Amino acid sequence: MADTWLTSLITATPQEGFELAITLSRRGVKYTQPDAQVLHKLRPEYSNDAHELTAASQVIATNFQTVAAANNYWRK
Amino acid sequence: MADTWLTSLITATPQEGFELAITLSRRGVKYTQPDAQVLHKLRPEYSNDAHELTAASQVIATNFQTVAAANNYWRK
Amino acid sequence: MADTWLTSLITATPQEGFELAITLSRRGVKYTQPDAQVLHKLRPEYSNDAHELTAASQVIATNFQTVAAANNYWRK
Amino acid sequence: MADTWLTSLITATPQEGFELAITLSRRGVKYTQPDAQVLHKLRPEYSNDAHELTAASQVIATNFQTVAAANNYWRK
Amino acid sequence: MADTWLTSLITATPQEGFELAITLSRRGVKYTQPDAQVLHKLRPEYSNDAHELTAASQVIATNFQTVAAANNYWRK
Amino acid sequence: MADTWLTSLITATPQEGFELAITLSRRGVKYTQPDAQVLHKLRPEYSNDAHELTAASQVIATNFQTVAAANNYWRK
Repeated sequence: MADTWLTSLITATPQEGFELAITLSRRGVKYTQPDAQVLHKLRPEYSNDAHELTAASQVIATNFQTVAAANNYWRK
Repeated sequence: MADTWLTSLITATPQEGFELAITLSRRGVKYTQPDAQVLHKLRPEYSNDAHELTAASQVIATNFQTVAAANNYWRK
Repeated sequence: MADTWLTSLITATPQEGFELAITLSRRGVKYTQPDAQVLHKLRPEYSNDAHELTAASQVIATNFQTVAAANNYWRK
Repeated sequence: MADTWLTSLITATPQEGFELAITLSRRGVKYTQPDAQVLHKLRPEYSNDAHELTAASQVIATNFQTVAAANNYWRK
Repeated sequence: MADTWLTSLITATPQEGFELAITLSRRGVKYTQPDAQVLHKLRPEYSNDAHELTAASQVIATNFQTVAAANNYWRK
Repeated sequence: MADTWLTSLITATPQEGFELAITLSRRGVKYTQPDAQVLHKLRPEYSNDAHELTAASQVIATNFQTVAAANNYWRK
C-alpha cells in the first residue's frame, strides 16, 4: 500500500487508542483483500452474524493490547 | 462514535476491571455493527449457543489482560 | 451483577491461580448469558464436544496468563 | 478437584516447560469435563481431526507463553 | 527454507512494522504449505470469505504485538 | 516423549527463531496425536484448506511471541 496511514501508536485517550485498534483490525483485512468492492460485498456477511462480530471484537481486543501497552495504559 | 465512553483503564477493584473488559468487548462488536436493532436481533443467536458464549468469554479474557496490566494487577 | 465475586487476583499457589482462571472464564460466560437455566441447558452442548472443550481450555489459558503475571508466577 | 497437581511453574528445561504447558491444557479440559469416560470417548474426535489438533496446539502455545515467562525463558 | 527473509524485527515506522507482521503471517502459511501453486489456488477461498479475512487479521494482530514490542512501540 | 528436542529458546537470528516457533507448533500437534501415520494421513486435510493454514499460522505467531521475547527480540 502506497498511502501512509500509521505514523504513531500514541493517542491522547484510551478511547482514541481503542479506535486506533479498530483501524489496525480493518487494515489487517484490507491488506489481505485490497479490492474495496469485494470488501463492500462481504460486509453484511459478518456485520449481521453473531459469530463474525465476536471474531471482529477478538481482533480489536488483540490490537488494543498493543496500543494500550504503547501508551503505557494512559496512566497518569 | 461521537460519545465519550472510555476515559481511563484504571478501576478500583479487579471485579470492576473485569466489568470494564466486558464493556470493551461489547464496544468492539458495536463499532463493527452500530445498528442497535440488528444487534438486538442477533443477541439470542450467541447468548443461547455454547460456542458463541465461549467465544465471547475469550474476547473478555483478552481485554481483561489489558485492563489488569493497566492496573498493575491491583497488587497492594 | 450485584454480588462481589472478585476481590483479588493473588492466590497462594499456582493451582489456586489456575482455578481462579477457570472462575474468570465461567464468569465471562455468565455475564453474557446470566440466565442460569439457559446455561444449565447448554452445558451438555459443550462438555460433550471435543471442539468446545478445547475452546474452553483456550479461555482458561488466556485467563491463567493474567493470574500468573499478577502473582509474579509464584516465584520464590 | 481435591488432588494437588500444580505446585510450581518452574522447570529445569524448556522441554519440561513445554510438557507442563501440555498438562495445563489438558487440565483446562478436565476441569470443564471431569468425567474420564466421556473424555475417553471424545479422544478420537479431536486426535484424528486436523482442525482439533491445531486448536490443541494453540492452547499449548498459550500456556507455554506463561510457563516460559515464569522461567525467564530459561536464559542462562 | 533456504532463503533468508528475516534478519531483523526493527522497522523505521509502525506502518512498516505492520507490514512486517503481514509478512510473518504469510510466512507462517507458506512454511505449512510450501507449494506456491496450491497456495495460489486457495487464495480466493479466504480472500473472498468474511470469516477467513477476520482470521487473517487476527494472525496479523498477533504478529504485530511481537513486532511492536521489538521496536519498543516506536516511542520517541 | 523420550527424545530431547528442546534445550534452548535462544537462536542466532529472528528467522531461526521463527523456524523454532514452527517446531513448537508441530510438537504441540505431535504430543496430542503421537501416531506418525495418523498425522501423515491428516496432512492434506489442513495443508490444502485455507482455514486450516490460517489457524496453523496463528499457532506459529503465538509461539513466535514466546521465542522473540526469549531472545529479547534480537535487538543489538
